[in-house]
Amino acid sequence: MKYGIAIFPGKDLQDLANSLRKRYDPKYALIPPHITLIGDFEANNEEIEEISKKLATIASHYHSIPIKVTKVSSFKPVSNVVYLKIEPSTDLEHLHQELISTLAVNPEHPFVPHITLGQNLSSDEHLDLYSNLRMQNYNFEETADRFHLLYELENGSWTVYETFRLGKE
Amino acid sequence: MKYGIAIFPGKDLQDLANSLRKRYDPKYALIPPHITLIGDFEANNEEIEEISKKLATIASHYHSIPIKVTKVSSFKPVSNVVYLKIEPSTDLEHLHQELISTLAVNPEHPFVPHITLGQNLSSDEHLDLYSNLRMQNYNFEETADRFHLLYELENGSWTVYETFRLGKE
Repeated sequence: MKYGIAIFPGKDLQDLANSLRKRYDPKYALIPPHITLIGDFEANNEEIEEISKKLATIASHYHSIPIKVTKVSSFKPVSNVVYLKIEPSTDLEHLHQELISTLAVNPEHPFVPHITLGQNLSSDEHLDLYSNLRMQNYNFEETADRFHLLYELENGSWTVYETFRLGKE
Repeated sequence: MKYGIAIFPGKDLQDLANSLRKRYDPKYALIPPHITLIGDFEANNEEIEEISKKLATIASHYHSIPIKVTKVSSFKPVSNVVYLKIEPSTDLEHLHQELISTLAVNPEHPFVPHITLGQNLSSDEHLDLYSNLRMQNYNFEETADRFHLLYELENGSWTVYETFRLGKE
C-alpha cells in the first residue's frame, strides 16, 4: 500500500487554499490542503505497524511546528506549480530529516515546505494564477501540533490512517 | 467549527464503495468512504480539546470493533440512500452510545451503521443502483482498531483532526 505523511494546516489556511485549488488543482478532491512531509512510500500491513511506532517516537521529539505563510511562490521552471510558501523553520527541517532517515526514503526534490494551490497548469493558467497572487501579502501564523500518516486508495484519494500528536508518545 | 466522528473501513471496502460512490454519491469527493458514528456537532477550539481527551478515554474502553458486511440495503422510503450494511455488534452499539452520551448529542435517526454508496438519488437512480446490488452477496470481515475525529471545511469536505486507537489512551 502507498503511504504518505503530511501536516494539515488550520481551517482558515485550508479554506483559502481550497478556494483556489477548486479551479487550479486537479487533486482538489483527492486530499485536503496539506504540507507534504513525505510524498509517498510503500509499506505492507506489518511494516506500517512498525513504522507507526517509530513515527510516534519521532512526534515525541517535537513540541510544535511553526506554520508561517507570507507569500505565494512557484516551482516553475521545474514544474508549473503555484503554492503557499511555508517559512523555513529549524523544527520543520529537523522533523523532515528525521522522517527521511527513519523511513530510509530518498526524496526526489529538496524539501521546500508548501501548500499547493495549483498544479499541472498550462503556461497560461500558471501565468494567470501566479501573476494574480504573487504581489499579495499573506499573514498566516499558526503552530501545528500533529502530523498525519495517510494511505492512497485506488482512485488516487488519500485516507488518514493515524494522527501523531507532537510532544506525545 | 463543525466536527464529526467516523470509522474508515479497510482499503478494499473503501475501494469497492468508491467505485459506486463516484457515480452515485455527490459527497464522493468530500470524504473517503466511512461509517458515521456521530454525524456532526459544533465545538470551538477549547471545547474540542476537552472532547478530544474524552474520546481518548472512550477509545481505551474497546479493544476492536468487528466490521462485517454481507449485503447492500436502502433507507428508502425515508431517503434514497443505498448503503453497505454493517452487521450489528454489541461493541459498535456501545461505542456509539458512549459517544452520544459523552458529547450530549441527540441523533436525528436511530443508529444504523453503514457505508453510503449512493445518496440524493432520483427514484430512477435508486432503482437502478439498488436493484443491481441488492441480490449480491458480499463477504467483508475486518476489525476496526481506531476511529477518527474530523472537521468540516467551507467547501463541505472533511479533514481528519485526530485518530483514536482503540485500547489505548
